Amino acid sequence: MIIVLKPRISKKEERAVLDEIRKLGYTPHVMRGVARTVIGAIGDELTHANLETLAAQFPQAVESVMPIQKRYKLVSREAHPSASTIRVREHVIGGRKLHVMAGPCSVEGEKQLLTVAEAVKAAGATVLRGGAFKPRTSPYEFQGLGEKGLKLLDKARRMTGLAVITELLSEQHVELVAEYTDIIQIGARNAQNFQLLIAAAKTGKPILLKRGLSMKIEEWLLAGEYVLANENPNLMFCERGIRTFETYTRNTLDLSTVPIIKHESHCPIVIDPSQGVGRADLVTTMCKGAVAMGADALLIEVHPNPAEAWSDGAQQVTLDGFAQLMRALQPFITAAGRE
Amino acid sequence: MIIVLKPRISKKEERAVLDEIRKLGYTPHVMRGVARTVIGAIGDELTHANLETLAAQFPQAVESVMPIQKRYKLVSREAHPSASTIRVREHVIGGRKLHVMAGPCSVEGEKQLLTVAEAVKAAGATVLRGGAFKPRTSPYEFQGLGEKGLKLLDKARRMTGLAVITELLSEQHVELVAEYTDIIQIGARNAQNFQLLIAAAKTGKPILLKRGLSMKIEEWLLAGEYVLANENPNLMFCERGIRTFETYTRNTLDLSTVPIIKHESHCPIVIDPSQGVGRADLVTTMCKGAVAMGADALLIEVHPNPAEAWSDGAQQVTLDGFAQLMRALQPFITAAGRE
Amino acid sequence: MIIVLKPRISKKEERAVLDEIRKLGYTPHVMRGVARTVIGAIGDELTHANLETLAAQFPQAVESVMPIQKRYKLVSREAHPSASTIRVREHVIGGRKLHVMAGPCSVEGEKQLLTVAEAVKAAGATVLRGGAFKPRTSPYEFQGLGEKGLKLLDKARRMTGLAVITELLSEQHVELVAEYTDIIQIGARNAQNFQLLIAAAKTGKPILLKRGLSMKIEEWLLAGEYVLANENPNLMFCERGIRTFETYTRNTLDLSTVPIIKHESHCPIVIDPSQGVGRADLVTTMCKGAVAMGADALLIEVHPNPAEAWSDGAQQVTLDGFAQLMRALQPFITAAGRE
Amino acid sequence: MIIVLKPRISKKEERAVLDEIRKLGYTPHVMRGVARTVIGAIGDELTHANLETLAAQFPQAVESVMPIQKRYKLVSREAHPSASTIRVREHVIGGRKLHVMAGPCSVEGEKQLLTVAEAVKAAGATVLRGGAFKPRTSPYEFQGLGEKGLKLLDKARRMTGLAVITELLSEQHVELVAEYTDIIQIGARNAQNFQLLIAAAKTGKPILLKRGLSMKIEEWLLAGEYVLANENPNLMFCERGIRTFETYTRNTLDLSTVPIIKHESHCPIVIDPSQGVGRADLVTTMCKGAVAMGADALLIEVHPNPAEAWSDGAQQVTLDGFAQLMRALQPFITAAGRE
Repeated sequence: MIIVLKPRISKKEERAVLDEIRKLGYTPHVMRGVARTVIGAIGDELTHANLETLAAQFPQAVESVMPIQKRYKLVSREAHPSASTIRVREHVIGGRKLHVMAGPCSVEGEKQLLTVAEAVKAAGATVLRGGAFKPRTSPYEFQGLGEKGLKLLDKARRMTGLAVITELLSEQHVELVAEYTDIIQIGARNAQNFQLLIAAAKTGKPILLKRGLSMKIEEWLLAGEYVLANENPNLMFCERGIRTFETYTRNTLDLSTVPIIKHESHCPIVIDPSQGVGRADLVTTMCKGAVAMGADALLIEVHPNPAEAWSDGAQQVTLDGFAQLMRALQPFITAAGRE
Repeated sequence: MIIVLKPRISKKEERAVLDEIRKLGYTPHVMRGVARTVIGAIGDELTHANLETLAAQFPQAVESVMPIQKRYKLVSREAHPSASTIRVREHVIGGRKLHVMAGPCSVEGEKQLLTVAEAVKAAGATVLRGGAFKPRTSPYEFQGLGEKGLKLLDKARRMTGLAVITELLSEQHVELVAEYTDIIQIGARNAQNFQLLIAAAKTGKPILLKRGLSMKIEEWLLAGEYVLANENPNLMFCERGIRTFETYTRNTLDLSTVPIIKHESHCPIVIDPSQGVGRADLVTTMCKGAVAMGADALLIEVHPNPAEAWSDGAQQVTLDGFAQLMRALQPFITAAGRE
Repeated sequence: MIIVLKPRISKKEERAVLDEIRKLGYTPHVMRGVARTVIGAIGDELTHANLETLAAQFPQAVESVMPIQKRYKLVSREAHPSASTIRVREHVIGGRKLHVMAGPCSVEGEKQLLTVAEAVKAAGATVLRGGAFKPRTSPYEFQGLGEKGLKLLDKARRMTGLAVITELLSEQHVELVAEYTDIIQIGARNAQNFQLLIAAAKTGKPILLKRGLSMKIEEWLLAGEYVLANENPNLMFCERGIRTFETYTRNTLDLSTVPIIKHESHCPIVIDPSQGVGRADLVTTMCKGAVAMGADALLIEVHPNPAEAWSDGAQQVTLDGFAQLMRALQPFITAAGRE
Repeated sequence: MIIVLKPRISKKEERAVLDEIRKLGYTPHVMRGVARTVIGAIGDELTHANLETLAAQFPQAVESVMPIQKRYKLVSREAHPSASTIRVREHVIGGRKLHVMAGPCSVEGEKQLLTVAEAVKAAGATVLRGGAFKPRTSPYEFQGLGEKGLKLLDKARRMTGLAVITELLSEQHVELVAEYTDIIQIGARNAQNFQLLIAAAKTGKPILLKRGLSMKIEEWLLAGEYVLANENPNLMFCERGIRTFETYTRNTLDLSTVPIIKHESHCPIVIDPSQGVGRADLVTTMCKGAVAMGADALLIEVHPNPAEAWSDGAQQVTLDGFAQLMRALQPFITAAGRE
């Protein structure tokens, strides 16, 4: 920790700050600069008290306190310099192959799901997405088919050989969801629901952790730390747009997360352009950018008839649209040195 | 719903849009304007499909779709024109009396909690706050005393007569928390954890729902709708700061929520300046503003020694600081016509 | 400056960083901590190079660089511990008296302006506001009456004795505007138009500097520094709402700026609730909060018939509304110890 | 305009709203829905009053007012369905060839500028960027070499054959800057300095308009409308990152602007990744995304020795770094069907 003192404080005030630093277990180290005196507090920030409270305790003497250690460990590149790969059935995410996870926003019925599953498989997807439990802004909106939806996902998996990803909404459903899915998705609204993260981690299943709507990258990495700290190394981060002042798109898809997650962490990075912009007509272009920048996988919403979708129709692409999208991506996958 | 058509589309394209509107259960009503043709789709938006998907289905013909109904009902002033009051033990929140809920960020031990409880009671608080389960950004930070913390809150309640508010983090703890608390707090990170909201609502206990860090007011009201729709009318909204680009304060406390919640809803509005600005030195001034603007209650973090607090020390005021704050508020409480 | 080194770098890499620090004129001071080595670079940050470039130059060795000095001087409380007051004709802003600046968004004509001027004076305002040059988002919107508007402001000033504030939009108009106004307003869109700030400062007239829509407090103070550094001490800061994700209000009025500006600076702080929320029905309540928190002045838009206003009708209060507002504020002005 | 009435208002109140709509020049058209009555006001929104004031005038009767026309005309795809191209010396921007504009943040001296100019030309750039007038957050930072810098740009142009782009900061410098530059850049801080935009437009020179830090896409298009409305068709939009809550990067580069500007407008879109993320190590990856998504040009900061740059060193790439970047982009330029 670095503690910046205010100018013109008394020796007595300075001593009181130094005493408190020692009391909290750090060794203070004083540097007198031209305009400010700065104290370096030597000690492990992860195991000692946070000194940021000094500014509150000594408002006349302490101007600011700055932590210097990164707060995440297990998800960091420092801890694991090579990229992690995650095995999902016969697939490997985070390796040379770019994976596409595709399917409807909500599982609505057998015919809808199987139609999409076969179409996305034919176009090259390896994972089927579909919501069985849906977090909806309003209690009056469709909340998902629940267990029935999970069983349909399982059926589609058996018929097509696609792996399955679905969202976990509640600690009460952990065992049920883990039984039917290959990847557990933690949604943006639950990205800091730490009890849910812990419960999901404990299943040992691969976890796809979406970024919360207003989550800083450090907070996202720390939420991922909850997964690894609960002994589950199979973590993927998924950017799905952050909330900004812009209203043209539903969210602002922050593609800089691709190089940043790769720089800070060893875990794969997945991009969800459907939630990210909320408009089907922009999805293909956003995918091109994500692939060129090095994303490990894409998560795309596909529906046989978006206008009649039970949720988020505006952002789902049609079956034909998806096949075209996959063809349009091909040159960029090659240019990026992926398969 | 209002559907705006693009200029210069063919009659055939227009007919296709009209047919789809009818298919989805609305009666279309065409208005030809100077620059655009607009379709009013007559039907209850809360029970019919959301037509926003038309823009995706007919990208050549539909420019935009605008809902016109408010999506919340039970929390709205329309549904309940007079202000709701909430009984908490012998107190009434939302009435003439301004309530102050005060106490430490985390329950750390018996001595700490009882010292604070007695001090805040002496200064005029009516509700004791204290976290037993703590949502922490990092898994390496103090996570709360759990059940032991709840029992200490109960003890403090018995000794002082203060009512108690504490945060519920997990569906697994609903019964446990409900047993010991008078008000259940749903924190900002769980404000759209709908399963938790439903579970909390079903206890029948008063619920204090904090605004999520990037929650629009409409979304906050809709999250509250989950409580009332689960037959619990005892809901309070609590503004605790939103996330913006500003870094001087931890969050940006949006005091305009006081008149807005009072305008849109019949539920009481509580202000949490401690989380809102994250700096103890600004708390008193923020409270003055909140009281003058008509807040029904304040939620304030108080600690005997903030520098040694186990969480969020920088934003907790001292016992003396709290007593001074309460005295400083008095003229504004009177000016606002409150007790 | 504080330079945090990456773990496990070589002695040679460390030496290269130390050499560069010396080359840029600082004296390096090494502190070896538990998890990181930190270098304190001793030297005046305001007159030396910004070391933040070290992270780019030594990406393998430097993790982060943190400045420790505040970048503003003349506007700071350190430079001028007592509050500054500003003389505007016979008035003093920043003293015991709360000032209200009121008038129409745009000057539209003689009758409109004089009607408002007389009404706001009768209700207790001391300064007349009115835009003669208007910055409009679209080139097709009313751009102001220009010089004719300035002459009408001057006429209203002579007839009522009110002081006048109006916005300066262009360096070309500096002399013209300075001739007719008592206070020069720099609007939010021009808050970092530094050439305009310098030109305005050089007139010697009091300057009211609005906060830009996405300006951090530090940037706002630094923009104010341009005024004082050009030898004009008569600066007021004016909060008028920042841009956030919320769409219920036009902007989010950040009332925490009242105590923050008073803490960081000696200059007066003015609150503009009309732009701040963009809705006339919320203006009175926002004013109550601002007054209770210690604002030195309010800037309020008033129009004889808001529905027919040539700009921003939704946020302008009526003449009657303004008179009621002034009465409603009285108890809060008293409670705040102001006149 | 669409006017949504509140439920349960009287016939008299409704008539008053209808009368006011007629008075303001529109023809009202009433639609009675299930939950709300809606009025369509028929008339050209660009030439009539904005009805949004009705909500203020009739707070008991009017719930909301929604405009339906787009406010921009000349910059829109509707007005000009094919893509515009801009001639800059012998180059064409907006055509098949991807252009790279590169050079130092600030012009610092002859040797620095010529070294960069030759290196970026050799690597494939066609336009030289360099700031002669610099908008700096603090008055104590380097403000640019001014006219001397312009003359150096001119010299570099003559020696290398590169076209030149430089920023215009002040109406006072319009003629001077126009004399020496091929493209006039309007920076983010001046993106709504409409007087500057008009002055720049009138030179007839190509204009590169950066997006303001918190500018909505509609506002950006409307600022561009000021250029075209002043009879200058040579407009490019340049995304350079918006301000969000994230602090890992300096700004959040919104790459969705590439397809959005192409969808809404006929003007070319340029991406500035240097300002966009503020970190040299992320620039190459951001460029790959921009090219894959269809950007017409890139604007990249290059410096012979970033650590000693007089401004923004952290975001400038080295000469070698730039050459590598250009090679790394090649496969993506081909994949995107560009040259």
